[in-house]
Amino acid sequence: MSEAVRPIDWVSDDENVPRHDAGDIHRPGRIRLLDQTLLPEREHYLLIESVDELVDGIRRLAVRGAPALGVAGAMGVALLAQRHTADEVRAAAMVLRQARPTAVNLALGVERALAALPDGAQAVLAAALALRDEEIAASLQMARRGADLLRALGPDPAPSGLRLMTICNTGSLAAVERGTALAVIEEVWREGRLARAIACETRPLLQGARLTAWELQRLGVPFDLIVDGAAPSLVRRGLVDAILVGADRIAANGDTANKVGTFGLALAAAHAGIPFLVVAPQSSVDLGKPTGADIEIEDRGAEEVLRVRGIPIAPEGVTALNPAFDVTPAELVTAIVTDRRVVRTAVGERPDA
Amino acid sequence: MSEAVRPIDWVSDDENVPRHDAGDIHRPGRIRLLDQTLLPEREHYLLIESVDELVDGIRRLAVRGAPALGVAGAMGVALLAQRHTADEVRAAAMVLRQARPTAVNLALGVERALAALPDGAQAVLAAALALRDEEIAASLQMARRGADLLRALGPDPAPSGLRLMTICNTGSLAAVERGTALAVIEEVWREGRLARAIACETRPLLQGARLTAWELQRLGVPFDLIVDGAAPSLVRRGLVDAILVGADRIAANGDTANKVGTFGLALAAAHAGIPFLVVAPQSSVDLGKPTGADIEIEDRGAEEVLRVRGIPIAPEGVTALNPAFDVTPAELVTAIVTDRRVVRTAVGERPDA
Repeated sequence: MSEAVRPIDWVSDDENVPRHDAGDIHRPGRIRLLDQTLLPEREHYLLIESVDELVDGIRRLAVRGAPALGVAGAMGVALLAQRHTADEVRAAAMVLRQARPTAVNLALGVERALAALPDGAQAVLAAALALRDEEIAASLQMARRGADLLRALGPDPAPSGLRLMTICNTGSLAAVERGTALAVIEEVWREGRLARAIACETRPLLQGARLTAWELQRLGVPFDLIVDGAAPSLVRRGLVDAILVGADRIAANGDTANKVGTFGLALAAAHAGIPFLVVAPQSSVDLGKPTGADIEIEDRGAEEVLRVRGIPIAPEGVTALNPAFDVTPAELVTAIVTDRRVVRTAVGERPDA
Repeated sequence: MSEAVRPIDWVSDDENVPRHDAGDIHRPGRIRLLDQTLLPEREHYLLIESVDELVDGIRRLAVRGAPALGVAGAMGVALLAQRHTADEVRAAAMVLRQARPTAVNLALGVERALAALPDGAQAVLAAALALRDEEIAASLQMARRGADLLRALGPDPAPSGLRLMTICNTGSLAAVERGTALAVIEEVWREGRLARAIACETRPLLQGARLTAWELQRLGVPFDLIVDGAAPSLVRRGLVDAILVGADRIAANGDTANKVGTFGLALAAAHAGIPFLVVAPQSSVDLGKPTGADIEIEDRGAEEVLRVRGIPIAPEGVTALNPAFDVTPAELVTAIVTDRRVVRTAVGERPDA
């Protein structure tokens, strides 16, 4: 078994700084970030010691995924608190929380660490580390609940096990450890019940091909990669037992916004009569959004569509639509699995009930 | 209006060969092929004068699309007939028809030209040119029938017009002129009834991004490119009035095999209640296949998934599934439009009735 990947963590100087630097009181600790833009070719870690560097990393998507961004926000405030006055910390934290304005977890992480500021820098760091540990615990909860639900929902096609499809990256790279939907797949594999995972490549940014493939390969989980358009037909041909996806935001009625391409998987699952599970932390349920129609869908511009890893794929001058997310209506979701509960949307349960 | 694109045509020497070559009786004519592997970056035409060169072009996908391959097969026999004895022609034609064994039109085109061989080389060429002209006429028939059907099926959302989605390349590059599904979209545009086309990029080989985008841009048809995973959500959001696709093979009951990704579009159309039209020549209806379950789905190997235009997108050693086609069940097809008729599958009509 290979070691767990942590896309974000805190390192104190006595662990990681060469001896001759150890006495430097201005460098009490730093953030260690795996630069995800370089995956799968390079596993390179950044040591972040200023909020400017952190904001740059967040904007470049060097760190991504809602739970990981929350921890980044909190640890960023911890960095600030160890180096600056309270007023300076508050001013810089405002910049940090805006690094990706639509990522609610980033702002929540910043808030949580700021709340400890009156108690001093060590209290801020403790709050950030507590958030990190809570995210790890939440991932383990989601993994267990999801694996149990799959056992309850249907027979295991013995002896080969379950064939589970997913999209985008919802593994440890999107969280701190384990992840959300991919954590469930990993759990089923650890239990010896997985025949094979199927990872959708997830155009335009290829998080499936680049990140999920990297994680599954590293763990040793057997899987195949597919183009996104192939998913519905593989489901129809009986090659998939269940589909598991993450969520960017879940409305009060269970409508789920997630990476573009998710809705098509839900249609295919409903047509074939297989379970379609949304796996996300409870904090992704947004009771302020009555339905999916209230969730704004961001268009990220044409460039991501017109190029693949920097290479043009279409004639010059072509325009593109690039919705980053889509909304899957609750009636197509078999169940929503959070760290706290399982909401059986298919039988009329609601996340806000 | 720009000139029509012909991906394949016959050129006789007096038209295209410099004067000092015109007396060479061993070079009475050649095949002019647009090398589609170089699109959209380069519009480069090959002058083919041997069957070896033609077979290479077919295998490399320099020429592709069922109608175009049929014409390539017939013109290949015409090349042979002008240079070789009847026995030599028959032997070489066997190699040609196997260049892409699953492409039925290639074999049909070879057969048709061979049937004229007893009447001499000029008769063989006449048969090949007749097939070319029939394909052009068939495309015009499909375009008109499809445009008429769209008028009959629903109200035109005036004043902006229809928003029509398609996948893969079904334009003149796949035929001789005009094409199949894309020919209908072009016809609607010529009639002034098109608001905008939406082209799915069509992973893995990006025929939508490379070829359909090139054709639509050249014609001046307004369109947007999207990643394949975005299609179902755009349909659900009411941004698409109808979906038009081609077909590689249509079973006797109307089940349709087409480029992978097509089935997901059909699910989205059915969910949203918009028309889903299959546009293909009558010759694509294979009465020897009772249902889609009888159509074999070719897997084209992992490389096409793991690389985009030569660039690796996944970690080394990853495996991939790469079904080239999928099957859309007849009940999800609103109608099949051929050059001869419209089959309203949605109201129970069958292509074999």
